[in-house]
This record gives sequence, structure tokens and C-alpha cells, in this order.
Amino acid sequence: MTTSTTTKKIYFFGNNQADGKASIEMRNLIGGKGANLAEMTNMGIPVPAGFTISTEECTNYYNNGKQISNELLNDINDNLKKVESSMGQKFGDPDNPLLFSVRSGARVSMPGMMDTVLNLGLNDVVVEGLAKKSGKRFAWDSYRRFIQMFCNVVLGVEHNRFESILDDIKKEKNITNDTNLTTDDLKELVARYKSFLKDRNVTFPQEPAKQLEKAIEAVFGSWNADRAIKYRELNNIPGSWGTAVNVQAMVFGNMGLTSGTGVAFTRNPSTGENVFYGEYLMNAQGEDVVAGIRTPHPIQDLEKEMPEIYSELVEIYLKLEKHFHEMQDLEFTIQDKKLYILQTRNGKRTAPAAIKIAVDMVNEGLISKEDAILKISASQLDQLLHPMIDPKAELDVIAKGLPASPGAAVGKAVFTADDAEEWKKKGEKVILIREETSPEDIGGMAAAEGILTERGGMTSHAAVVARGMGKCCVAGCSALKINEHKKTLTIGDTVFQEGDDITLNGSTGEVIKGKADLIQAELSGDFEILMDWVDKIRNIKIRTNADTPLDSEVARKFGAEGIGLCRTEHMFFEGDRIQAVREMILANSLDGRKKALAKILPMQKSDFTGIFTAMEGLPVTIRLLDPPLHEFLPHDENAIKDIAKELNVSVSELKQKIESLKEFNPMLGHRGCRLGITYPEIYEMQAQAIIEAACELTKQGKNILPEIMIPLVGEVKELGLLKDKINIIAQNIIKEYDCQLNFVIGTMIEIPRAALLADEIAAQADFFSFGTNDLTQMTFGLSRDDSGSFLQEYVQKEILDNDPFQVLDQKGVGKLIKLGVEQGRKVKPDLKIGICGEHGGEPSSIDFCIKAGFNYVSCSPYRIPIARLAAAQTALTQNNNN
Amino acid sequence: MTTSTTTKKIYFFGNNQADGKASIEMRNLIGGKGANLAEMTNMGIPVPAGFTISTEECTNYYNNGKQISNELLNDINDNLKKVESSMGQKFGDPDNPLLFSVRSGARVSMPGMMDTVLNLGLNDVVVEGLAKKSGKRFAWDSYRRFIQMFCNVVLGVEHNRFESILDDIKKEKNITNDTNLTTDDLKELVARYKSFLKDRNVTFPQEPAKQLEKAIEAVFGSWNADRAIKYRELNNIPGSWGTAVNVQAMVFGNMGLTSGTGVAFTRNPSTGENVFYGEYLMNAQGEDVVAGIRTPHPIQDLEKEMPEIYSELVEIYLKLEKHFHEMQDLEFTIQDKKLYILQTRNGKRTAPAAIKIAVDMVNEGLISKEDAILKISASQLDQLLHPMIDPKAELDVIAKGLPASPGAAVGKAVFTADDAEEWKKKGEKVILIREETSPEDIGGMAAAEGILTERGGMTSHAAVVARGMGKCCVAGCSALKINEHKKTLTIGDTVFQEGDDITLNGSTGEVIKGKADLIQAELSGDFEILMDWVDKIRNIKIRTNADTPLDSEVARKFGAEGIGLCRTEHMFFEGDRIQAVREMILANSLDGRKKALAKILPMQKSDFTGIFTAMEGLPVTIRLLDPPLHEFLPHDENAIKDIAKELNVSVSELKQKIESLKEFNPMLGHRGCRLGITYPEIYEMQAQAIIEAACELTKQGKNILPEIMIPLVGEVKELGLLKDKINIIAQNIIKEYDCQLNFVIGTMIEIPRAALLADEIAAQADFFSFGTNDLTQMTFGLSRDDSGSFLQEYVQKEILDNDPFQVLDQKGVGKLIKLGVEQGRKVKPDLKIGICGEHGGEPSSIDFCIKAGFNYVSCSPYRIPIARLAAAQTALTQNNNN
Repeated sequence: MTTSTTTKKIYFFGNNQADGKASIEMRNLIGGKGANLAEMTNMGIPVPAGFTISTEECTNYYNNGKQISNELLNDINDNLKKVESSMGQKFGDPDNPLLFSVRSGARVSMPGMMDTVLNLGLNDVVVEGLAKKSGKRFAWDSYRRFIQMFCNVVLGVEHNRFESILDDIKKEKNITNDTNLTTDDLKELVARYKSFLKDRNVTFPQEPAKQLEKAIEAVFGSWNADRAIKYRELNNIPGSWGTAVNVQAMVFGNMGLTSGTGVAFTRNPSTGENVFYGEYLMNAQGEDVVAGIRTPHPIQDLEKEMPEIYSELVEIYLKLEKHFHEMQDLEFTIQDKKLYILQTRNGKRTAPAAIKIAVDMVNEGLISKEDAILKISASQLDQLLHPMIDPKAELDVIAKGLPASPGAAVGKAVFTADDAEEWKKKGEKVILIREETSPEDIGGMAAAEGILTERGGMTSHAAVVARGMGKCCVAGCSALKINEHKKTLTIGDTVFQEGDDITLNGSTGEVIKGKADLIQAELSGDFEILMDWVDKIRNIKIRTNADTPLDSEVARKFGAEGIGLCRTEHMFFEGDRIQAVREMILANSLDGRKKALAKILPMQKSDFTGIFTAMEGLPVTIRLLDPPLHEFLPHDENAIKDIAKELNVSVSELKQKIESLKEFNPMLGHRGCRLGITYPEIYEMQAQAIIEAACELTKQGKNILPEIMIPLVGEVKELGLLKDKINIIAQNIIKEYDCQLNFVIGTMIEIPRAALLADEIAAQADFFSFGTNDLTQMTFGLSRDDSGSFLQEYVQKEILDNDPFQVLDQKGVGKLIKLGVEQGRKVKPDLKIGICGEHGGEPSSIDFCIKAGFNYVSCSPYRIPIARLAAAQTALTQNNNN
Repeated sequence: MTTSTTTKKIYFFGNNQADGKASIEMRNLIGGKGANLAEMTNMGIPVPAGFTISTEECTNYYNNGKQISNELLNDINDNLKKVESSMGQKFGDPDNPLLFSVRSGARVSMPGMMDTVLNLGLNDVVVEGLAKKSGKRFAWDSYRRFIQMFCNVVLGVEHNRFESILDDIKKEKNITNDTNLTTDDLKELVARYKSFLKDRNVTFPQEPAKQLEKAIEAVFGSWNADRAIKYRELNNIPGSWGTAVNVQAMVFGNMGLTSGTGVAFTRNPSTGENVFYGEYLMNAQGEDVVAGIRTPHPIQDLEKEMPEIYSELVEIYLKLEKHFHEMQDLEFTIQDKKLYILQTRNGKRTAPAAIKIAVDMVNEGLISKEDAILKISASQLDQLLHPMIDPKAELDVIAKGLPASPGAAVGKAVFTADDAEEWKKKGEKVILIREETSPEDIGGMAAAEGILTERGGMTSHAAVVARGMGKCCVAGCSALKINEHKKTLTIGDTVFQEGDDITLNGSTGEVIKGKADLIQAELSGDFEILMDWVDKIRNIKIRTNADTPLDSEVARKFGAEGIGLCRTEHMFFEGDRIQAVREMILANSLDGRKKALAKILPMQKSDFTGIFTAMEGLPVTIRLLDPPLHEFLPHDENAIKDIAKELNVSVSELKQKIESLKEFNPMLGHRGCRLGITYPEIYEMQAQAIIEAACELTKQGKNILPEIMIPLVGEVKELGLLKDKINIIAQNIIKEYDCQLNFVIGTMIEIPRAALLADEIAAQADFFSFGTNDLTQMTFGLSRDDSGSFLQEYVQKEILDNDPFQVLDQKGVGKLIKLGVEQGRKVKPDLKIGICGEHGGEPSSIDFCIKAGFNYVSCSPYRIPIARLAAAQTALTQNNNN
């Protein structure tokens, strides 16, 4: 017994009337392609008749043990008859044959999921009828193409086996071009195909009905093919959606010189320019245009060749764009001087094109500003802001890691941070290759064009720092075998020595052998216009995570409205100060520590002076020291020896200190405000540096707004104690400078306990900044540096929808955040709340933050435009929902 | 301006009437000592008159910048007059001098917080008056004692400086005994004391009022002395409580042979026997009894010496015990044939005595069973269950660590788990000394008498495993310097070689040089009686954490009602199976892993057979594999070499595997059900072993109740996926065996996200077991293995009240637990809920679990009686509150 439902299974289209349309509900049911075919039919556009089997039937097919139900077969038959009547042809009738194309069609386009099957319905008998009606050569060419396609796509025979049989005949006949094959050659080819299939024990079905059933099964089956699953993973498409199947009457562009076929965009998809853009071939099928064997002509040439058809096509494209309010990507076929539109869909476009099209359409009165904003994919903006690999370049991709920081980079392989700095000094561009980076590597990372690591996820040290620097990074590339000692990188059989050229694509995670050509993307005037609109609509502030004056300037250019996270530890590594930091750590007394801190004070102060100046008039949130002290000490034998010498301590003493600071789980260890509690002098020095820098600038008439942020608070008393200490220091300095300085002291909410007890903490905090990196780690019990080994499998198995370090887990972590906001605001209704985790630059997470009532999000400088756009998009959908 | 309040500052007692009494509110206000003095006064017991300054005044003193307010000085003066009138003497009047004792008195007794100041009110003039009235020698002896005591306690002069001046005079006079000093000697002594003080520039105040004010300040000041803070930390007493000050008229036991002094318990505090127990000295002050210079007489001798006084004393002690319903510890003084009671308080007693007294008092009709249960400190029961160091033994304590697992152990020092096993085989008792233990050390830990570690806290691996084994452990003893290679332990100047005797006191954390005498505590019949009462009252089940049949049997004897946590990973280490486990880990294919798991299967099955048999009729919760695989691989060079050989792989291959499994934060890494997801074959093997063992025993007619527990679930889909797999396996086996088996599948709630989304998880879970160790780590963002370096400082600075790994953090972690319970029961109202973290054996945490609606707590076998008692205590107080 098969499951039977009363829901409509199949949606017919033809005769200017369709069961479906292009509504959202209908798209979900019959897929994007089917919905658009229905819509076009209803619009009176010439579309060959056909029908769409709904996505629900795909699910039923799987639930039914991969069997097409009898009910569905019956419905197919009914609809087939309607198509026959609409087209005036008959499926399987040699005298007047109706042929079909069969294609998949999911809710969203999934290119490469399944090839199309064309010419379905041909067999040994029908081919003869077609030959009579439409010419012999055409008929036999169609037949051999159909066998080839059907056997490949539906029966799984390798494509190249057919190609080699074809090549044999071409060689025998001394022919180089397929079009020169005679009818007899094609008949011979069909015979050879059949004999090959017989040898392979593959049955090619002669009955058209069987062909159709098998093709529909193949489309359903393709939904769970490896490449489709992979694509869904990469694009966050649930497996439960299923695919629809479009069965459409064939029309032929290869029926002679009055026939043709082509693809076109209603605007230029690379630049966005408002010109009809596309190409066509006469006497050809669609695959010929794509295959590139013959060079297609630009669409404009069609005006001369078939002026009436061209003007009909122009009329249609303008109608379609006006109807869908979107740039369209359409396929057409001319069969014996009659134009058919086979497909239309929203056209894919580059980021610059997306922006130009959106702005142009507003200017043309086609869409509103709000529509324009909603049409641009926030994450696509990333492309705009980084160099890219030239799309035309041929690449030798040898491994794939995580796309940890977008953009592309070319350089010579180096294996240590020191080497990176040295090579850079010699004027070389380098790629820093590390098992995983640590804060010690900062200098080398800054010197490198890009960073490649073997371990660590999307929020590993390498990834976070690289994004902050706007530098390309491929992380967690487990195929790498790095020998730091020998300075070699082995990937499969390829061995890179130090100095060998290597290219990274941080937007895709690809590692490429050799030097690829890069192109620099530029920000257009349209971008500025769009960002202007965006800023008027959004209702949340966008700040940046920036640790240096340079970062701050870049961020401000990108539209940052303050700094949401300035990590002071990065400053501890710069230049000579790391030595003073190490002296402090090694000091065995308070006095010793204070002496070392006194050396660091002026340097920190000058950092803050620079950052405050760059951000004048905007708030600057400075996080006091966060990482465990262990991170500041060297770890390899040679570095230990060097540093012991520098610091004038014995190697064994240094090693003992390193050992004593080693932690089993440093993430959960002696860091953050716990350092401030046990070594108050460190935070005191930092507070002094911040307030002194702020006071000096204030005295110069600048408007400085420091926000001191205490990290890793889990208990309100930690915050209270540190806040009191800082306040005393600050008030003394302000009195000394005799100036008016408004500063606030707040805390990160990054420990679950802090979110749970946010009411208590709010009483002591001037602001909350949700540190969603750590909060995600702790709420999930998941180390971001270690989760790479199994997190991908979790997403594959659909246990998790996303990597929670990339996309905020709204259900779990989000629940805790909402609780924290609610508790905090209960005590302090106007509590300022922001986010400074990596999620602050991710569109769906920004949407969450806005809805949770945040005052700002903070993200790395290069993601600010994305955040601005995403914020506006949320504001718009919120308004629509209200 | 000082703060002024209208609250009563001082509570007078005297003339059989007192302002205070022994209510709970009053105890909080005037301390235990003051409350009992008031109560005795009201009872008509002869108590020298006096007054108590309230604890609130201590707080005011600190708030007032460590100044006694004028209002308080006035009140002191008023009360002083009342004492004068009651005693018929006058403070500072040489003709009829009134002298005072001044003592601290907090809400709870804090021995060693502050020494008493006696004889206050003496000066160069008053001493002469006292001499006339009560004898010269007595007067001058009192005076020199007062100077000594006042200068030491109030002015901070070292005690031994006075002792050496006294010694000088004794030498000069050729006297060995203080009592042989003449009046002139004593006058000379006073003179020398004064000259010494003058040299030291210390002013000894002559005005009695000044003396009193200074002494009161000293008591207030002593509240925040280092040793008091230390004591409060160890005993969880908040610093905000403050201390009261008792100022009481002096009476003298050293006014000749009709005077005397003594201390007594109303029952024997060591055994609990119902006999009057104490000792006294004639012609002596209290300090003489304690100091041990003269040997006191047993209290019974007083019957002969002063029969009337004795019978008055007996009458009083009986009256006091009857009044307080508690064994009393009292101090008395006989001044010239008149008996005074100076103090009474509940007497400290050993655990066996506590039980005997409670049971006896019930039998005597003095208290109810409920009272008896409430009177026994649950945590004190620990003493009963472990060997103790003989209290009479002289100990050379050389270091102190955390009291990680109670009891005491003596043995020879060994430094590796293998050595422990080898020495044990040779018949030696050993103490295993490690930097920190790891699961590899299990065998050695089992072989050792006790375990001593340098690192790790109360819930470190060493501590948890030792408690489970009922084995003594001192953990986190940072004074240790261990050289595993040379097999030496250095503590300060002491160096232990392998084989040197060492003693551990796991109840105090003391490390003792050499061999201390141990005594075995035994469970008395009274213990059984008490436990019977307890079980009838408590309303929560007590289960045990047990991993072996032996542990299970021990636990059942202690009253376990099932197993709440059986950790399967410990079984992975035993005997030869670790090799199979390693084979599994090193296998690069599913087949290879399955082959290795097939070897482990029969061993796991036999473990479960043993445990199920020991726990027949009771539920057994088995947790599937939890730790990261890394823990099963060797870490030191030699072991790696050996094991590579054993497993027939290259050293480099093994090292590479170890390296690839290394994690930055293993706590948050690839462990728990994440292993079950990525290597389903491991959990499948475990499920098979559990269900097969259960089915075989069921077929034999035994009642087996397996509960399979999935660890580290953070997302319901993890649980759903694994549960489905296990159910299929289980149903197949049950069908095969053709038997009826009731098994359930539940989950640990140990990740914050699981608690937050407990509603979703409850839909898939038959039970919840809160893993509060990990839940505490993640909710606090605190690694239990690393927190040792700062957690003590947190408790010292009162940022946290307790180590949250010892005492459940009810405010933060508890909030999450309550949320989890609420969400879970909303979906499944009869959801079984338990706790299997270390907190399951801690009384205040058990109290929390009962109130949160848990069905059971689970703890290590040796803590079961404690849990049973604590559960009954909560049930009783709950009833009282209802």
C-alpha cells in the first residue's frame, strides 16, 4: 500500500493558463523554475506546455521506499494528455511526436544538482516519424543525443564512453566537427551506442512512458546525490525541502537555419549595466551554446538576423523585468521562426552588478529604495571589499580548507612568523603557513598577504585576527602536512619548499598551487548611494572591532560608529613591549610586576591616544587584558633559550614558569577579569593608560568617549571590585588633569552564568557587550579550536543547521542572550547592549540582535558595510511585519 | 559625625535576669556565647554579671573607620554601672575592685579567633587594693598575668618576650615552678615587664576605662585578623556577620585552696557515653587547666574535695542539658566556695559520639528522632567511614594541600602508576605521588593506599577517582616539587626518595613526614539505628557512582538504591583491554575499529554482568563512553615506544595519531556523545554489551533495570539519533533472547544549552541526570583542573562563597538547573531527574536537589550515609517550614 493524499500532485501550464504561479507558497510547492514557467504562461508569454510535479511528491517518493506511487503515475498520464492537446502532438506517436525535456526544480536554484534530459520520447520508431516530419539528420542527431543524455543522467553511464565512440567515427570519417556528420554517420553512431550498451548490460528503454518514469525517478534520486547534499550544506538548504520535476514539451532550435537558441540576461550580470546581454546560436540546441564548441553570437546580432523575433524577445524581456522587478536570466528557443521562452529566473550577478542594478532600478522607478536594499545579499558584499582571484584564471586547486577570511592572496610560502617578517622586509610577498597561529605570530600575520592553517575553525585565532586585519585566511585545512622544522608543506604529492608560490582564496577556502592572477574590486559611487539609503533605514548602531589606529581609520571609512571591541592584548605583542610583558610575568613580586608594567604604560597610552584620535567623537570600548598569561611566553625550545637570555633568567626558570602557567583548558582558565583580580596591578596600569590618554586629548578640546570593558565576568562581585578600583584611579587622574571626561565601565557577557545573573550584573555595569564567541563555546560546551574535527559532520548529518561560530545559534545561545537582555533591562531599562563576537558581522545574527533590542553590533572593519546593509534589511522586514 | 542608630547596642545580664536569650535571632545579634550567658542568667544559674556588645556594633565599628562611636562608649558606661551594682564592686576602685574578662563571641564558635583578656581593670593602684582584699601574691600574680595578656592580645607584643623575662627571674631565683614565685618576685616581674614595654615604646594604659575600650577594639579588630579570615573560609562563615564582645565580671579560681576552676562536658565527647566528663584544678585560673603545666583532676574527684559544690555542678549540668537538649561544654570557677558558671555551649564531639549521644537522648526521651537527625552534621559522618590518624599521634606536618578525599593513609612514596602496582605486588603499601593523575594511572591509584598530587582541585581526576574508591587523597598541594624522572619529591628542605614513608590526611589535606599511627573507625549499632530513622524520613532516593562490581557491593552496603553513574571509560583501562582500545583508536577504517571493538565487547559485557548482579532489583545508569580518545593514548616518550611496539605500528605513526587527537580545550572537545555521533560503532558495541548482559541475567530470573545514559548532549538531535540506533540494537537482542527487559534511555544535562533547551530534550529522554561537574565548569567558564591557581583567592576575597566544585552554586548553576527541570517536566511531568556530579554527596547541594524536585541524588559509595542523612534533614526542615 502506498500513501495516498488528496493534495494536488501536478501543476499544468499551457495555453496561456497555468495551475501554478510565482507566489512564495507556490515556489515552495513547485520550485522556482516551475513557478516561473507558470507565471510566464499566465502572462501570455510563449512557453511550451508542460507540467510540474510538486516537491511534496519528492518527499512522498522517499517515504514510499523510493517508488513512484500509482496515483502519481495516473496524474502524470492525465497531464501528459493535456500537454498533447495543447501542443497538438502526441507522446510516442511516430506521425506527430511530442518530445519532453525533464528537469529538476527546487525552491531555490541549485546549479549542478542534475543535468537536464532532453528529447525524451524518442525511440527506434519515433525517430523515423520525426525524420519524416522535421528532417532526417535532425531526427537522428536528436536521437543519438537523447540516448547519450538519458544513459548518462538517468542510467549513470559515463559520458566520456559515448564521446569516445563519437570520436572513433569522426576519426574514421576524417571529420573534426560534429555538424559534418551525415545522417548515416548518426545512424551508425546510434547503432554503436546500442551495441556498447548491450555489452555493458544496460537496458535503454524503448517505451516513452518508461523513459518518462525513469527520468522522473532520476530527478527525485538526484536530490540526495552527493553533490546535491554538498551544495545544500554549503548553502544552508534543508534536505527536507525536496525537488519538483518539470516535464515540458520540447521545442527545437536545431531544426535548420530558421531555428536557434540562446540565453540572455536583462542586464549585464558582471557590471550591472542596463543593456540586454546574452548570446545565441542558430540551428543549435541549448547545450551547444553552453558547451562552447561553436562560438555563439552576441544577442544584438539577432536583430539583423531575425528582426521580428528580436523585437518580440526585447518586448518579452522588458515585460519580464517589469513584472518580476528583478534582472532576469532567460533561455529561449526559436523553432522554425517561432519564439519560445523556456525558462526565466532572477539572474545571478556579481556584487558590483547587484549594487548598480539595484540603484539603477530605483532611478528608473522600477523599484523603491526599500526594495533595492532588500534585493542585495548582505554576505555578497564581502566580494566588494577584498581582492579576488580573476574569474578567468585557470587554477590548480590542491586542497580546500575553511573560508576563514575573505579575499585572495598570492605569495611565497613561509613557515614561521619571524620568517614572514624577514621575507617581507626583503620586499617579498608571503603566505604564512602554520599548524595554528598564536598571539606570538601577530607580527608575522601582519607581514603576510594571507594565512593558511592546518587546524582551527572559523573563529580560531588565525581566522579572527585575519578578519580583523582584512587579510585573506584559509583555516582548518586538514589536508596540510606541515613540517615547520624542515620548512615544507606537503599536500598529497605536492611538496612546497619555503619560497614556493602559493595562492589562497579566503572566500572559498581553496588552496592553489602557484601564482593566480588577482583583481582588485573597487567601491563604486552606487555603493555610496546604497549605503546612504541603508543608513537612513537601519535602527541599530554599527561599531567595529579594531585594535590599532590604522584599523580604526579603515573602519571609520567603512562607516563604523565607534569601536565595540578594542583588544588590548594585541598591543602587548607589538615591538619591544612583549619583553616588558614577559618581565612582568616572570616577576615573582608585586614590585617586580609593577616595574615591568611601568615600562608598558607609556606604550599602551600612546596606543590609546592613536585610537581615540581616529575615533574622535565616537565611543571606544576597550577591553582590559583577556588571554591567559601563558600566551605571552614562548613555546619552542629555541625561542625559550633566546628569551631566557634576553630577560636574564635561566632557561630552567623560564621553563618552570611556562610549565606552571600551562593549563588543561586555557579557555576556561586563569584569564579575563580573573587576571585583574589576582594581579590588580595589570588592570590598574591599563586603566591609567586609558584615562590619561583620554584626559590629554580632552584637554586639547577633543571629544573622547572611553568605555572600559571588563572581560569574562561570571559573578557580579568581580565586576564590582574591579570597577571600584578603576573608578578611584580614573577620578584621581581626571582631578589631576582638571578636565571633564565622561567614561563608563561595563562588562562582557560571555559566560553563561553572567547571562543568567544579568540582573545582578546590570546593577554594576554601564553597558553589556555580549561576547558571543566565548558564550557560544561555553553554552555549547564546544571549543572553537577543537570542533573542526567533528562539526562538519554535525552539519552534514543535519544535527546542527550551521557552524554556531559562524551563525549565531538563536535557539540555544540566543535564548540565553534574550534572558540576559531581559534581566539586565529589568534592572536598568536604558542599559546599553551590544555584541562584539564574530557574529556581529553575520546578517542573520545581526537580525537577531536587532530583534533582541541591542543598541549596536560590532564587527571587523571589512564587514561593516555588510552589517549596515543587514541591519537595514531587518528594519525593513520588521516594518513590514508590524 | 558618627553614624547613630536607635537599635539596642548592648545586652546586660546579671541578677538572674538578662536582656538577651538563646533564640536564633538573639544568637545572630549577640553571638552564641553572649546568648548562652543570658539564657543561663535567666535560668537562675550563677553567672557573673556582665554585658554583650552586639555584632551589629562590630559592623558599625568597621563602617565608622574603625572607631568606637561615642554612643557606644556611653552605653558601655551605663552597663558597666549595672555590673558594678550587681556584683557590689566598682571598676577601677582600689578598695573594692571590679575586674573584667573580655572575649569575642560570634554567631558560631570560632576557636582561635581571639584570646581572652582576663583581669582587666588592674593597674598600679588597683593592684594594691586587690592585694589588701584578696591577698598580695594573688593580686600581683593577677596583675602580671594581665599585663602579659593585654600587651600580647591587645597591643600585639610577642608572648614569648614576657615568657623569657619570667624565665630569667626563675633562673635567678633558682625556681622551676611559677607557683613558687613570691610576691616580691612578682612585683619585680611587673617592674621588668614595664621597663621592657618602655624600651619597646609600648604604652600600657593605666586607666581601666582605656583598657576596656582598647580591649573591645581589639576584639572587633580580631574579626578581620588573618587567622579569623582563614577560619571563616574553611568553615563557610560570611565576613559580614561580625563578632559580639562579652564583657563579664571576673571571678577568681586562684584565690586559694577553696577556689578552683574547671571545664566539663555533660557527656563523653569522644565516645558519647552518658557520664559527666571533665577536669578541674584548685587554686588556678582557667588558663592553667588548658596550659597543662599542672595536671588537672578528673571532675569526679571534686565530689570528694567539695561535695556540695560538686552536687550543685551536677544539678546545673543536668539542668543545662535538659534545657538546651544538647550535650554541653561548660566552664566553671569556684571563688571561695562559691560556684560560678562562666560559659556553656554545645559541646564538640567526634562523629561516633555525635551518633551515640543523639540515639541515647532519643532513648532517654530528651529529644525526638527528628531532633536527633537534625543534630548530626552530615559532613561529619565522613569521619566514621574512613581510617583516621590517631588523634594522640605527634605529627611532622610538612605541607598542606586540598582535603580531596577523606581518611588517612600511610605508605611508601612511589612516583608512577606502574611503580605503585609493582610495589603493591611485592606486598608494600604505597602512596602514589603525581603531578596530576590521568585515566592511565587508574591501576596505580587502585594499588595505592592514598594519592598525593601537586595540581588539580577538589574535583580533579585524582580527587574524583579517589573518592569513588573511598581512598584518601590530598590534591593540589602546590608546595610539592616532583621529579618523576629521578623519583624524588621535594617539599621545602625535605627530600623523599622512592620508598620513603609518607602519611596523608585526606580529611585535612595534611602531608606528614614518616609513618603516623592510624585508627580504624567502626560503624556502631547506633549508626544503623540512626540510618533507619533517616530512611523513614527522607523523600529522595540515594544512588551511587560506581564503576565496578566491588564498588557496587560496597555502595549497596552503605544503602545505595541503585547506580546513578557507572562510567564505562574506567573499564577501558583495565588489564589488557586498553590495548584493544588503542587498536581501535589507531584503526584507520571502520572495519579496523569494529575488529578492535569486537575484542572489547565480551569484557564490557562481563563488567556489566557483575554490576547488574550486584545491583539486582535496582536501577543501574550506565553512561556511554565520555572522555576524548586522546586520554587512552600514552603521553611519555617511553610509553609511546613500548606501545608502538605492542600495537605493531611505527613510533611516528603513533605520535602522529596522538598529535592529531590533541586538543586545546579537551573539556570542550571531541568527547561524550560527539564520539557516539562520529564513531557510532563504539556506542553500538556498548549498547550491545549492556543489553546482552541484562538479557542473560533476566533469562536467569533476575530483575535487571538498565538505564542507558548519553553524555554531553547539547542538541536534541544528538540524543534522537543515538537513541534510535540503540533502540534498534536493543530490540533485536531482546527478540533474540526472547525475554522481557525494561530498559530506558536518558541523557546527562551537563551542557548549558541542554538545560536551556530541556523541553526539546525531554521529549526524547526517559530521564535527566544533571552532570553538575561539567555544568559548573561550563556555566562558570571555569576549568576545574585549572581553577586551583585563583579559586582560593576568590574565596578569600569573598568574591565566591565557596569553591563551586565542592558546593553547588545555587544562584547561577542552580538557576540553570531549575530552568532545566521546569522545562523538562513541562513536556514530561513524570520525567525522572537525578544528579550525578560530585555535588550529589554534599549536604547543601542535596538540599537544593530535593527542593528542585529531583528523584534521586548519586554520590560515591562512601558518601551515601551522608547523603541519606542530609536528605532526611532537608525533609525535616521542609516539613517545619510547611
